[in-house]
Amino acid sequence: MSENLKDKNNGRGILYGVSVGPGDPELMTLKACRVIRESQVIALPNESLKDCVAYQIAVQAVPEIREKEILCLPMPMTKDQKVLEQCHREAANRIRERLEEGKNVAFLTLGDATIYSTCLYVYEKVKAAGEKTEIVSGVPSFCAAAARLDTALVSGAEELHILPATYQIEKGMELDGVKVLMKAGKKVAKVKALLTEEGRNVQGVKCCGMPGEKIYRSAEEIDEDAGYYSLFIVS
Amino acid sequence: MSENLKDKNNGRGILYGVSVGPGDPELMTLKACRVIRESQVIALPNESLKDCVAYQIAVQAVPEIREKEILCLPMPMTKDQKVLEQCHREAANRIRERLEEGKNVAFLTLGDATIYSTCLYVYEKVKAAGEKTEIVSGVPSFCAAAARLDTALVSGAEELHILPATYQIEKGMELDGVKVLMKAGKKVAKVKALLTEEGRNVQGVKCCGMPGEKIYRSAEEIDEDAGYYSLFIVS
Repeated sequence: MSENLKDKNNGRGILYGVSVGPGDPELMTLKACRVIRESQVIALPNESLKDCVAYQIAVQAVPEIREKEILCLPMPMTKDQKVLEQCHREAANRIRERLEEGKNVAFLTLGDATIYSTCLYVYEKVKAAGEKTEIVSGVPSFCAAAARLDTALVSGAEELHILPATYQIEKGMELDGVKVLMKAGKKVAKVKALLTEEGRNVQGVKCCGMPGEKIYRSAEEIDEDAGYYSLFIVS
Repeated sequence: MSENLKDKNNGRGILYGVSVGPGDPELMTLKACRVIRESQVIALPNESLKDCVAYQIAVQAVPEIREKEILCLPMPMTKDQKVLEQCHREAANRIRERLEEGKNVAFLTLGDATIYSTCLYVYEKVKAAGEKTEIVSGVPSFCAAAARLDTALVSGAEELHILPATYQIEKGMELDGVKVLMKAGKKVAKVKALLTEEGRNVQGVKCCGMPGEKIYRSAEEIDEDAGYYSLFIVS
């Protein structure tokens, strides 16, 4: 960290929520690369480095990340609010210990940190405790998926609706404009059945810009095990 | 252009739709910078360099752009389909002349090219003519605005609705979840009146990451002349 920044913040470090983009390391921003380079600690929402897709992306663009202190902050895949709250509080405390030591912490997150990012729950707690924080924007997965499909998402008067498909999407599907279904996860089979039944115009990408990438040009083509990193564009 | 690429495309150049992000040059992606560096021609949707916000952003991250051939392709601000069609066709032809010469063309666009980008109309025409094309993703303005406001856009089950405020937004405002109003342009006063009357929870940014940046924490604070580069988040 530069002495300059350290002085400005009374010797405490800064927490950065760093968006690493959708998968292709070249889609990381200049700022994300710089902030990772200038941080002493890299926080990840996973058990280990090898489980962390965001780290695997970042290490390709910023190999120096290998020399940094790594803070693994695993987030349970549960909707139990009590368990989540406890987990986010512990993660926030562990980050604050590093900030106290004057270290900057870069918390890596896939896509853009402001859109369905787990990292933001912890970030909000650290900020609420009075620490200095900053979000570094990134390319969201739906922009990269549209680019991969070589198509506009929306133009002119069209509306764009981003719908988390882990939850109910039936109502959202009735909206005018373009619908993006994110986070289908374990519900891919259900989403596929709905889209097929309604005869929707669907395109999709699994693991966009990552190993195992696959493109779907219709609802029928969707793999039922397409999983968490797949995204569907319905127009 | 590398000999390698040239061979692959029968000696013709490639058209890249290059997203330069929302305003801060550091929010350009590594790929956008590389593609600009490797292109011989830079196409802009404006009368001149100095009118082009996308160019002003790119030149800060990639100063070498100053040495490139510039192709100005002004797009009229009209809804007259005939005028637009003619203009897009001419622009596509001028780009194709450069591709024919074996030059790569980087068509710069603000934000992300797949979201309300004028460049995509021309891009589609060039692609339909059989040319090789590629979209380079960028950070959309609404992600950068949320980061600037230091807040999540959406989390968990929340839906995100992107509404072009140049058109009717009354119906969209009734949707559950978070609404982003883009492109308010000359209608800012009308949008402000609607948001104020309905007592909405509003935050906004004018010229995010650019000179003249201003933050709004309520509908009342919005400048009626906030203009095209302002964006409002309604929750």
